[in-house]
Amino acid sequence: MSHRKKKRKTGLPSGSLIYTGDIIVENPDVTVVQYNESIFQQSLLKGVECKPIAEDKVSWYDMRGLTNVTLVEHIGKFFNIHPLALEDILNTTQRPKWEDYPNGIFVIVRALRFDVDNQDVIHEQIAIFLRKNLVLTFQEDAEDLFKIIRERLMKTQGVIRYKGADYLVYALLDLLVDQYFEILDQVDDKLEKLETQILTNFTPSVRNRIYHYKRLVSEIRRVILPLRDVIIHFSREETKLVETADNFYFRDLHDHLSRVVEMLDNQRDTLNNLNDLYHAEQSNRANYVMKLLTIVSAIFIPLTFIVGVYGTNFDVLPELHHPKGYFYMWVVMGSIAVLQLIYFRWKKWL
Amino acid sequence: MSHRKKKRKTGLPSGSLIYTGDIIVENPDVTVVQYNESIFQQSLLKGVECKPIAEDKVSWYDMRGLTNVTLVEHIGKFFNIHPLALEDILNTTQRPKWEDYPNGIFVIVRALRFDVDNQDVIHEQIAIFLRKNLVLTFQEDAEDLFKIIRERLMKTQGVIRYKGADYLVYALLDLLVDQYFEILDQVDDKLEKLETQILTNFTPSVRNRIYHYKRLVSEIRRVILPLRDVIIHFSREETKLVETADNFYFRDLHDHLSRVVEMLDNQRDTLNNLNDLYHAEQSNRANYVMKLLTIVSAIFIPLTFIVGVYGTNFDVLPELHHPKGYFYMWVVMGSIAVLQLIYFRWKKWL
Amino acid sequence: MSHRKKKRKTGLPSGSLIYTGDIIVENPDVTVVQYNESIFQQSLLKGVECKPIAEDKVSWYDMRGLTNVTLVEHIGKFFNIHPLALEDILNTTQRPKWEDYPNGIFVIVRALRFDVDNQDVIHEQIAIFLRKNLVLTFQEDAEDLFKIIRERLMKTQGVIRYKGADYLVYALLDLLVDQYFEILDQVDDKLEKLETQILTNFTPSVRNRIYHYKRLVSEIRRVILPLRDVIIHFSREETKLVETADNFYFRDLHDHLSRVVEMLDNQRDTLNNLNDLYHAEQSNRANYVMKLLTIVSAIFIPLTFIVGVYGTNFDVLPELHHPKGYFYMWVVMGSIAVLQLIYFRWKKWL
Amino acid sequence: MSHRKKKRKTGLPSGSLIYTGDIIVENPDVTVVQYNESIFQQSLLKGVECKPIAEDKVSWYDMRGLTNVTLVEHIGKFFNIHPLALEDILNTTQRPKWEDYPNGIFVIVRALRFDVDNQDVIHEQIAIFLRKNLVLTFQEDAEDLFKIIRERLMKTQGVIRYKGADYLVYALLDLLVDQYFEILDQVDDKLEKLETQILTNFTPSVRNRIYHYKRLVSEIRRVILPLRDVIIHFSREETKLVETADNFYFRDLHDHLSRVVEMLDNQRDTLNNLNDLYHAEQSNRANYVMKLLTIVSAIFIPLTFIVGVYGTNFDVLPELHHPKGYFYMWVVMGSIAVLQLIYFRWKKWL
Amino acid sequence: MSHRKKKRKTGLPSGSLIYTGDIIVENPDVTVVQYNESIFQQSLLKGVECKPIAEDKVSWYDMRGLTNVTLVEHIGKFFNIHPLALEDILNTTQRPKWEDYPNGIFVIVRALRFDVDNQDVIHEQIAIFLRKNLVLTFQEDAEDLFKIIRERLMKTQGVIRYKGADYLVYALLDLLVDQYFEILDQVDDKLEKLETQILTNFTPSVRNRIYHYKRLVSEIRRVILPLRDVIIHFSREETKLVETADNFYFRDLHDHLSRVVEMLDNQRDTLNNLNDLYHAEQSNRANYVMKLLTIVSAIFIPLTFIVGVYGTNFDVLPELHHPKGYFYMWVVMGSIAVLQLIYFRWKKWL
Repeated sequence: MSHRKKKRKTGLPSGSLIYTGDIIVENPDVTVVQYNESIFQQSLLKGVECKPIAEDKVSWYDMRGLTNVTLVEHIGKFFNIHPLALEDILNTTQRPKWEDYPNGIFVIVRALRFDVDNQDVIHEQIAIFLRKNLVLTFQEDAEDLFKIIRERLMKTQGVIRYKGADYLVYALLDLLVDQYFEILDQVDDKLEKLETQILTNFTPSVRNRIYHYKRLVSEIRRVILPLRDVIIHFSREETKLVETADNFYFRDLHDHLSRVVEMLDNQRDTLNNLNDLYHAEQSNRANYVMKLLTIVSAIFIPLTFIVGVYGTNFDVLPELHHPKGYFYMWVVMGSIAVLQLIYFRWKKWL
Repeated sequence: MSHRKKKRKTGLPSGSLIYTGDIIVENPDVTVVQYNESIFQQSLLKGVECKPIAEDKVSWYDMRGLTNVTLVEHIGKFFNIHPLALEDILNTTQRPKWEDYPNGIFVIVRALRFDVDNQDVIHEQIAIFLRKNLVLTFQEDAEDLFKIIRERLMKTQGVIRYKGADYLVYALLDLLVDQYFEILDQVDDKLEKLETQILTNFTPSVRNRIYHYKRLVSEIRRVILPLRDVIIHFSREETKLVETADNFYFRDLHDHLSRVVEMLDNQRDTLNNLNDLYHAEQSNRANYVMKLLTIVSAIFIPLTFIVGVYGTNFDVLPELHHPKGYFYMWVVMGSIAVLQLIYFRWKKWL
Repeated sequence: MSHRKKKRKTGLPSGSLIYTGDIIVENPDVTVVQYNESIFQQSLLKGVECKPIAEDKVSWYDMRGLTNVTLVEHIGKFFNIHPLALEDILNTTQRPKWEDYPNGIFVIVRALRFDVDNQDVIHEQIAIFLRKNLVLTFQEDAEDLFKIIRERLMKTQGVIRYKGADYLVYALLDLLVDQYFEILDQVDDKLEKLETQILTNFTPSVRNRIYHYKRLVSEIRRVILPLRDVIIHFSREETKLVETADNFYFRDLHDHLSRVVEMLDNQRDTLNNLNDLYHAEQSNRANYVMKLLTIVSAIFIPLTFIVGVYGTNFDVLPELHHPKGYFYMWVVMGSIAVLQLIYFRWKKWL
Repeated sequence: MSHRKKKRKTGLPSGSLIYTGDIIVENPDVTVVQYNESIFQQSLLKGVECKPIAEDKVSWYDMRGLTNVTLVEHIGKFFNIHPLALEDILNTTQRPKWEDYPNGIFVIVRALRFDVDNQDVIHEQIAIFLRKNLVLTFQEDAEDLFKIIRERLMKTQGVIRYKGADYLVYALLDLLVDQYFEILDQVDDKLEKLETQILTNFTPSVRNRIYHYKRLVSEIRRVILPLRDVIIHFSREETKLVETADNFYFRDLHDHLSRVVEMLDNQRDTLNNLNDLYHAEQSNRANYVMKLLTIVSAIFIPLTFIVGVYGTNFDVLPELHHPKGYFYMWVVMGSIAVLQLIYFRWKKWL
Repeated sequence: MSHRKKKRKTGLPSGSLIYTGDIIVENPDVTVVQYNESIFQQSLLKGVECKPIAEDKVSWYDMRGLTNVTLVEHIGKFFNIHPLALEDILNTTQRPKWEDYPNGIFVIVRALRFDVDNQDVIHEQIAIFLRKNLVLTFQEDAEDLFKIIRERLMKTQGVIRYKGADYLVYALLDLLVDQYFEILDQVDDKLEKLETQILTNFTPSVRNRIYHYKRLVSEIRRVILPLRDVIIHFSREETKLVETADNFYFRDLHDHLSRVVEMLDNQRDTLNNLNDLYHAEQSNRANYVMKLLTIVSAIFIPLTFIVGVYGTNFDVLPELHHPKGYFYMWVVMGSIAVLQLIYFRWKKWL
């Protein structure tokens, strides 16, 4: 989850195309889909032979893996993408953003996945380029996130098939937002477990886990918050590339995202409350230890003093010679101990 | 109080109608009311036979229970509701929102109820669709929240009867806001009890209760805050569906809601202050324990040392042979103890 | 200081006139004043005989006590006040607000009084209705807050006599704001005393007082903050009822109120700082106790060990038989004690 | 540093002229300066004989001391100042503000001075009235703050001489802002010393100093923050009294003030961090005390137990009769002590 | 990292040219570069002989070192820079700002460098003046920050050579922002080390380091946050000096800077979390010490009491005379100790 741009070379002219990510995909797949209400064609791009945009079909190029910079550059030039956008595709530490270039809309978003082993979130940059009848997507990883959408395109003849490229972008973003919900559900589960543990089975190491989730939630926030602005751009009638009738879909998506953000806020609150709870419980345990020490000391220190008195070697010490002296000493000491126990009981320490 | 959408299936096309709530109502009632200044008719919808909207009457369909998805779909199609709105009716984890569809206003709100046993708040989603002379309401639960409004419609011939559908929506929302006041009154009572308990009858478990109410109040906030925006939309002259003369009513409602939010802010402040108070009291008790330990130790440790001195077996130890040695030892030890008690009294520890 | 609306009956149609306050005034006085530059007439309203608004005089009806709902209703109907405004007059838990009805401006404000005995703030709702040449005021309590203004009207022939009804409203509000200053001065005094007490005469109960004033200040804020918006409405040229030349007066009033809010912010800061100070002082005292315990233990525990050594009954224990053994033991023990005292002095614990 | 308005009499008509400050200046000086590019005349106002505003010269009346209310009133009437502005001049607890009266701009600012003895900030109200070719300044104190400006006017024939009255106001405000920088430099020095003291020479009293500077900084903020708005009014082209070419100067001044505010924010952060540091250091010292107690107790309590064992008077206790028993006891006790010291060393407590 | 303006003399007329920085550069270099698509000329300015701006070339004067005030003044006058801008160039404690003077845009930015030895950030003020075909840069330090840009200009014939002066400014700012990334990477590394140290190798001095980085990060924020506004001015079409086609570059730069700010926010969060972690760990260690003390005391204090009992000198004390008395005493004491150890084990203290 590093935000570093280690490979960035200071002073390089901007527009220089260098892939800065860690994921190496030697031979990236580029799936090409073309569809309209009646036709659905799917193929893998062989070499670099892109086709001109069809007037009556939506074309979708989905590239998975960015190690092959020249291929990205070739596609970019073929579809006339601005050099800064190409640079952003390859610099995979971008935050979500929306750019309105003269020949299309360019969007950076991030896909999240929950890594159960490390209790961590893995994220991957997705670049989307939208033009009339054309959608280009660039995924950082080779894993096919959008397979489910292609399958839906293939199987159904529903709304997604007769709507334009803007609806396809909506469907892709909706998929990502659904994944956010799933991740936050998992985080919610973990936080509930943390809460139970603090209240019933406290160990100081809980603190490290609270710290871990605080960082996790604040990182997810950083990925998701700017996405809202991206979707707001789509939902307003800012661009002709999104049909007015489709604004409702993006507004609905924005609504979903608001709920995601609300869940994140909720989790942040919960973590702060858990932190409070942790500290209160820690104090509570320290106080318990303290009370135990005080009880033991308060009972035995006076008794030890008393037996000390009768351990002195004075020539004249009458009690020592009383036949029941030893017995009476025990009576006195027992009374002191009992009175103290009653006192501590009354104070609710026992 | 879960915000999960367990039933949501990632990748499903949006607009898919699936009920995501937990409340199962096999045979939902749909009460149909039609009224104007002179007429009031009430019936239960049999089957799916909706009637076209009457020009001279307000028609109100109130459906209670959403398990029967096909009935919702049927009503939705009859009155030409947008698929996304239908989806929102059934996805019962929505936050309050206001959507201005071309053929009507669609509003999601949430009804709250205080569950005295669990000291928890139960909420239920209410979807309201407003069109000229038509109000549709969809309640998640079978319980008839709006019965009181129907009775008022039946009994009175007052303002509610000669005003339009917009006033009916106002009356429904006003009812919900009144319920918020009641819930917050109950929370206020609980917080007052908590305060008393911290100040007079402290137990560490108070902490858990503070934590519980913190979560409760922050959840109520999440339900109520977005409702303000909903009502602002009504109170401004944004839509022809609300008559200008009725804006005052929505403004008044907004005012009530502002007071609700103020009460919530107040309760949040109170909880933070109670948390402070809890920690201060906890420290206070720890300090008390500490002082007790210190007093006992400070008094008896020196005395034990003194009797230790006269317990040594030196051949030459003159005090031991003095006839009043033992008596003088007690005098010395008594003086030490008394001086210390005076000192602790002066320090106000006793 | 309760914000409850105990008497509010959920589901009642809005516009229902019910007095919700706690103050019972069986026979409310309604003082009627009519004045212009040359004339000043004052009388008590007998029965319900309101007079039509005079063109050349300002008429001011000041009602004290709201228990007589029918009288309020009568006056409201006579001067044609909107039912929602009448409802607000009687529901005495309103926050300050400004409503621009077609036939006049309706304002809710709150008067504050400091209850020295309980160190608490008592507040009372004041409703003001302003129309061309007419001011209606409704006070919750029978006490005559505005007497001082009537006396000024009677005695002087200054600006207040030749200005219109808007200036009268300004004078009334200015009086209330002046009272806020007085209350905050008293709170300031109390906070200064609290500070002194924490620094010189600390007792744990200070905590309860800090908590009390935190609630007090945050309640005063809730009353005063919305009043700013009310006055802003007057100071802008939003309504013809306020003459342009009088905007300066309301701007000046807004300025005063800003200073009140600043004082409140200041007091809130002070209380937070006092809370910090309280906790620091509490820790400080706990540390002092701790140090005392440590000093006593560190000095006497080793000494007790030494005398214990010479209290053992070994057959062969040479030191016991040395003629100066006992003396040397004291020398050693004295040295240990003195060294420790030097160490603690060097550590600045003594 | 009191914000009280002790002398304010509630209910007095606004516009009443009463001086509310504490500084008594029986015979206030009023210095009158008139200048243009070629002429510079300076005199003390004798009696009340103000001169009409000259068309070709800038006239500047600088009054120092406000006890003589009638003189203020006279000047106010001569130059036709609004009664509310006159009242503000005399009520010396105003916050900085900008009022655009029909016949001129009225500005309240505050001059700050650092009182080294009490480590406190003294402030004084300055009222400035600006009209075409006229500047009136009213200082609360008799000390001549603006002498340096008059000397510059006299000596130089630079920009200040050929610019208008607006530039003079700029020069006066610039002088005050420069003084703020000096004060904050002094506060910075004090905070650096506080930091050093916490880290090297900790005493609990540092806490009171942190508290003192927190109040100081928050008070300076209250004086300076509203001044920004005042200067923004000048820097925008809102009034004809400031020439467009001079807007740059006020923008530069606003920039300086932003830096002052930034320094204040910085100091507030620093104080919060110092508070954290104080608490951490306090805990640290408490822990040190605790460790010392634990080390002493852990070493000597077991040893005292051992010698206690051999102080018992059992008839049969073989070790006592061993010739080297006493020696072996010391060996055992020494080993226990050494092992514990090693353990504490390993724990880094020693 | 001082924000003082020690050399500022209060009361000096603004526009006075005094260099307020600490870096002394006796003989500042002024590198002059002139270029267009085909030509590249570079020389050092000899004396003060500036050349008039060429119509077909971009001229860039880069001055390094500001001690020679008269040279700055000369260049300023030659290119007709406003006196306030000249003053800002020399007053090197400016915050980043953007000024639109009638004859050009004046920008103040700050270059940051990480001083590895002191773990501190060194910053230097850079003033940039942009006019059609002219860029002036004034660096505080003699070190040549912009060498890399000149080399790129010389070597490449790319976009930087055929774009105008606005692109050169973009390239310079991009270089500075790249340096920010590098510094924050280094801070990130340090914070990761701090985290590891708190969790594995805790010493109280970590606190001082947290404090140090808090100040560092908040200082970097103060330098970077205002820069965003500067770049926003360039990215909007506010000035004709930036060609519309180049807005994309500044928008991209703004995007980079947003990421820098995000990293800073992240680091601030991390530091707050580390602070929490520090306090939790500190409490944890205090509790450990406490537990150790309690265990030792709870075990040995009762045992010491028991041996004290048998050290008393009562005439009648039967146990002493039992042949196995001493052995039984050990059995009893052993049992007590073992039971306590089991208890502490069960409590998970051991």
